Amino acid sequence: MRTLKLTIEYDGTHFFGFQRQKEHRSVQEELEKAFRQFLHEPICVTGAGRTDSGVHALRQVAHIRIQNPLPEAAIRKAVNGILSKDVVVKKVEAASSDFHARYSARGKIYQYFVWNSLIRSPLNEAISYRYPKKLDLEKMKEAGRHLTGKHDFKSFQTSGGKKDMATVRNLSALKISKKGSLISFTFEGDGFLYNMVRNIVGTLIWVGEGRLTPFDIPQILKARDRRKAGPTAPAQGLFLIKVKY
Amino acid sequence: MRTLKLTIEYDGTHFFGFQRQKEHRSVQEELEKAFRQFLHEPICVTGAGRTDSGVHALRQVAHIRIQNPLPEAAIRKAVNGILSKDVVVKKVEAASSDFHARYSARGKIYQYFVWNSLIRSPLNEAISYRYPKKLDLEKMKEAGRHLTGKHDFKSFQTSGGKKDMATVRNLSALKISKKGSLISFTFEGDGFLYNMVRNIVGTLIWVGEGRLTPFDIPQILKARDRRKAGPTAPAQGLFLIKVKY
Repeated sequence: MRTLKLTIEYDGTHFFGFQRQKEHRSVQEELEKAFRQFLHEPICVTGAGRTDSGVHALRQVAHIRIQNPLPEAAIRKAVNGILSKDVVVKKVEAASSDFHARYSARGKIYQYFVWNSLIRSPLNEAISYRYPKKLDLEKMKEAGRHLTGKHDFKSFQTSGGKKDMATVRNLSALKISKKGSLISFTFEGDGFLYNMVRNIVGTLIWVGEGRLTPFDIPQILKARDRRKAGPTAPAQGLFLIKVKY
Repeated sequence: MRTLKLTIEYDGTHFFGFQRQKEHRSVQEELEKAFRQFLHEPICVTGAGRTDSGVHALRQVAHIRIQNPLPEAAIRKAVNGILSKDVVVKKVEAASSDFHARYSARGKIYQYFVWNSLIRSPLNEAISYRYPKKLDLEKMKEAGRHLTGKHDFKSFQTSGGKKDMATVRNLSALKISKKGSLISFTFEGDGFLYNMVRNIVGTLIWVGEGRLTPFDIPQILKARDRRKAGPTAPAQGLFLIKVKY
């Protein structure tokens, strides 16, 4: 049995997320179908994490365990010849038998783009969330500093996650920058709760427009109550950039 | 009669170019239809230049002449409320009565993107031309230096243009840079022949892979023969970045 580590890029626009589900197109299912077509054995693609419907990935990671002795480069070429245009396997690498895309992961980097302008941008439409109101970058950065580090992020977890799970995470970095109308938020951490990045972005936007102040952030964290934080920013602005091992 | 200068952005993927044509969707027609809907008078949108089917624009310029006294900001808001997602009017500005989007233009900037990798990129698919073979950037830059300046570019004009037209143009700058797998070509000039940018990119790619040398460029220019230059690079990598007045 061989374990292969896969690095995957996809445009999430036309996927109902990474995870296989009935009656909807998913990245996982597309990959599994494509591999089965030439490997002729049962295939289960295990991702480092789910991405929701509409979320993109520059370097999602997954693994498969197979018996077929086909070289890695040939596997990559064959699978990409079958996959549709919006998903690609960038790398196929031999991994040790105990490698697990999800459990071996030590951290992740996400990026979120906000198109901050009264005018929509057709060329940035599919990869960002347009927010027309003026946002104060310095206030958002200040709020971001209150979020960086080890905290209980329960207030930023969309309910639907399992109850009584540990909600403390270490957000090692949160960088905010702006180029033209495009604001970029980069998150680096050991793990993320369900919708945590999108809930933080929605909250930072509220800080940026003055509905909250940076000083509200410690209170929101302390409350451990999703209703205290801002809304969930939409999926199309979110990119899974890297999974660290 | 008022003359309005329009700055327009579009994702060219689903347009058959800028110019109105029967039975195909064009940027010009979409704009005219949208303006007519609330201005209630005949509208002709005159662009700074055509862009071909699939070519994108970050700041295309056009003008309209109207009688309606609606303020510029209201016109912009109204038209963008009607236009589909892949096109937007970024600016509506009052212009002098002799302003003409095409004849007043003093120059243009185009950018072309090549995704230079064996592996396709779903996230760059719609905005670049994927070229899998290794390209020598230094050789392409050297070839670019032979193209910069005032030359007869007839060898880089796709036939179909009017015969006996002047084919001398001043290409004031041609910059080539690479970031990751993405190669960017930026062209700045007083005017461009039909398909000139795409024909130059096709030729530079041939230089990059060694099918031509930088020293072939002066000969190709001298020949004034389209067959001596390289192929036409595809539309989806091309962006009209700016029109200068």
